[in-house]
Amino acid sequence: MNKKSKLHMNTQEFRKEGYKVIDWIADYYDNIEEYPVLSKVKPGEIRNNLPKNPPQKGREFDDILKDMDLMMPGITHWQSPNFHAFFPCSNSGPAILGDLISTGIAVNGMNWITSPSATEVESHVLDWMVNALNLPDQFLTSSLGGGVIQDTASSSSLVAMIAAREKITLGETNKTGCKQNLTVYTSSQSHSSIEKAAKIAGIGTNNFRIIDIDENYAMNANHLLDTIKQDINKGFIPTLVSATVGTTSSTAIDPVDQIGKICKKYNIWLHVDSAMAGPAAICPEFRFVNDGLEFADSYTFNPHKWMLTNFDCNIFYVKDKKYLLNALSILPEYLKNKATEKNDVIDYRDWGIPLGRRFRSLKLWNVINYYGINGIQEYIRTDMRITQELKSWIEADENFEILAPTPLTLICFKYKANDDFNEKLLRKMNASGKMYMSHTKLNGKFAIRFSIGTSTSTKDHVKSTWRRIQKCAIELKG
Amino acid sequence: MNKKSKLHMNTQEFRKEGYKVIDWIADYYDNIEEYPVLSKVKPGEIRNNLPKNPPQKGREFDDILKDMDLMMPGITHWQSPNFHAFFPCSNSGPAILGDLISTGIAVNGMNWITSPSATEVESHVLDWMVNALNLPDQFLTSSLGGGVIQDTASSSSLVAMIAAREKITLGETNKTGCKQNLTVYTSSQSHSSIEKAAKIAGIGTNNFRIIDIDENYAMNANHLLDTIKQDINKGFIPTLVSATVGTTSSTAIDPVDQIGKICKKYNIWLHVDSAMAGPAAICPEFRFVNDGLEFADSYTFNPHKWMLTNFDCNIFYVKDKKYLLNALSILPEYLKNKATEKNDVIDYRDWGIPLGRRFRSLKLWNVINYYGINGIQEYIRTDMRITQELKSWIEADENFEILAPTPLTLICFKYKANDDFNEKLLRKMNASGKMYMSHTKLNGKFAIRFSIGTSTSTKDHVKSTWRRIQKCAIELKG
Repeated sequence: MNKKSKLHMNTQEFRKEGYKVIDWIADYYDNIEEYPVLSKVKPGEIRNNLPKNPPQKGREFDDILKDMDLMMPGITHWQSPNFHAFFPCSNSGPAILGDLISTGIAVNGMNWITSPSATEVESHVLDWMVNALNLPDQFLTSSLGGGVIQDTASSSSLVAMIAAREKITLGETNKTGCKQNLTVYTSSQSHSSIEKAAKIAGIGTNNFRIIDIDENYAMNANHLLDTIKQDINKGFIPTLVSATVGTTSSTAIDPVDQIGKICKKYNIWLHVDSAMAGPAAICPEFRFVNDGLEFADSYTFNPHKWMLTNFDCNIFYVKDKKYLLNALSILPEYLKNKATEKNDVIDYRDWGIPLGRRFRSLKLWNVINYYGINGIQEYIRTDMRITQELKSWIEADENFEILAPTPLTLICFKYKANDDFNEKLLRKMNASGKMYMSHTKLNGKFAIRFSIGTSTSTKDHVKSTWRRIQKCAIELKG
Repeated sequence: MNKKSKLHMNTQEFRKEGYKVIDWIADYYDNIEEYPVLSKVKPGEIRNNLPKNPPQKGREFDDILKDMDLMMPGITHWQSPNFHAFFPCSNSGPAILGDLISTGIAVNGMNWITSPSATEVESHVLDWMVNALNLPDQFLTSSLGGGVIQDTASSSSLVAMIAAREKITLGETNKTGCKQNLTVYTSSQSHSSIEKAAKIAGIGTNNFRIIDIDENYAMNANHLLDTIKQDINKGFIPTLVSATVGTTSSTAIDPVDQIGKICKKYNIWLHVDSAMAGPAAICPEFRFVNDGLEFADSYTFNPHKWMLTNFDCNIFYVKDKKYLLNALSILPEYLKNKATEKNDVIDYRDWGIPLGRRFRSLKLWNVINYYGINGIQEYIRTDMRITQELKSWIEADENFEILAPTPLTLICFKYKANDDFNEKLLRKMNASGKMYMSHTKLNGKFAIRFSIGTSTSTKDHVKSTWRRIQKCAIELKG
């Protein structure tokens, strides 16, 4: 892009078209409630409406922007105030604009030298978060550890497992390949990415131990201990335990403190996956989500879930970065530079899988500065309050039943009828276009998941949605 | 974001501040030549100027935008017309604006149902690319294979290795862990991510075979064949060969056709890494980069390098997706849905490491539609032509020497003096702020890399830079 190019969009045109795109986004949010939350298209319907071949000759940008009309029917509106499926991917104006600057300047922060600000702002903001969330000092860059932005908690869990594997085998795995007697542990409620990481890292599902849960869907620490002891007796090498704070199914909270003591005793890497729950700790009254973190070798949570920062933005902290670096560093000649050789900078390429890296901390910078700590606290508190209100409404309706504790902003509930009925109820509500909720199974039983956190959503939205659910259930009951 | 929120940025404010950010970016490009290309800051300098603590109270967006002044000294300007280091990360107006829409609507395309357009536009555009680049039909979604967008070629290489591992062990690795006798092969010139993938996947560096190169820095297929035969005799299981089209050091091109025949005979997964070179095939006259691709089990290249699409945008094609899916699919209850169960949609979460996924194909959609095939061809041809002109200027100066073939847009050269002198020359030029080039070693000798492709760069820029290099060398020679 420059002032006068004929081939490329020039800066004059960029200003003009850029304003239109900004307006397009603002219009989208102004009208977001008019769209059905869950897309109604059938498989292939969107593709069928797209031109079979790409244009030979370039098109006007105005026309290309109109192509969004072809795509909008196939959008499921994650930012709708009536989106209550999965977990939120909450977005915000300052995050969008921070990411836009990053996209605009388009630097690649693979090494410190390739854009020092990309590295230093990332370290700085992640240190801010350690303090804002009252996390253990072991995660500060001034300690042996530090933080890094990854795309998702899936990548962070994988990276944790690789570091753990290297630590326990004293680096041997990197050379000889993954030993076939390394075992990893997590509860039946943990995220699918933990099992996926065990496959990718060459540990294998046979060495992946699923630990029992208690009546609150949290990991049973006694069963963990027994399983570890049995494995050691059989010659296995317990390598990593992944504990979850806020499971995907029901936001259950594993007893990290108890688990941590076991890990410490047996020298096992403790990874804590707090993907959704982590930001709650910005409020002192919700710091129960941090319990036991002093035992964690690595910790991860997603500002892209519940901290107003658009996807992708996952934060990964590690207590001792040397295991991570030993596992992932490679320095080819073409990347060598003085700053790296003197070892007085961080090169984030060695902290994750990709070599190239966007300047992702800018959006986090914008969010923290725009809202301030107070503003993020208010956002978290509001969601927690709305959740408790919704809970009280559900409890007050004798036809419904809450199926799991509600420590955070997810309610698992059902109509007092069989699974079939509840599945129908969910399907009907989602098909209405007025809301989107998802489901899970708890104790083998179907549960509707109502998740709160999208930044457009207010108590009034949740109230109307709840009334619709009640009405729909009565109609369906006939 | 909504119309009236007090806590969140409302849409009125978003319009106003969004325009400012658009202007900020346009101003940046209008003035990009005024910045030193390579940042001059010292380690820690940027952090030292940032507030020690995050603000308790939120700040005005105007002030936050001014924070960029604190960060700009620590930016290395990848979009500068005088950036010739590494490979380009070429950006463009339509790409920025496409990505902005994606950031704005902020959907998560992990499954088809969670935003059908995110999946279908991705499949569609990647099918377009198969045709535009004249790639083998085996990569079309209508075949057994298909394409997917990943963040970087590093991730694609890892994913290829995992699929290969699963194929050769008939899925056993997923269960029992990575066998310790799987071997992978690549040349000494291949990208560091191949070795990194071998570590991550649990194959191990002892099982990572570095194949000799010929006088053009391309893989020696005979040495590959011998190494494979020896390994088989010793009981190893050759699993994957990674061939490179356009190596990072010198854009050497491995003999993919010969390598492919060997892989076919011994049933070894052939991965082709064409990260930089891939887009050249949009011009019929440069389709030598596709030679032998019909043998490839997987293929990857980066529109974020040489196809005007801002980072991150890597394309990964696979010939038979079942190996990929067998290796990476996990379907927990909370992600189950009808479309997935009926198996009539693509769920891209199973095609890579992260679960969550941005709508990244929008920026590619914008680029292809804005430029048209003709426009992208013109861009590629211009870069190829400028490179050949620069080459002729270097050849015409008897003090300089070109050190490797120049099939694409990278020139490796040196001043006819020792390594020390050339290192000094490079350091002095980069310190001038007028250009940024990087280096490599070829046959153990220091080589300056001059890489072309940034979309702001013209022949005049390259000409002045070359003159500066000549002048600087004379001065340094004294």
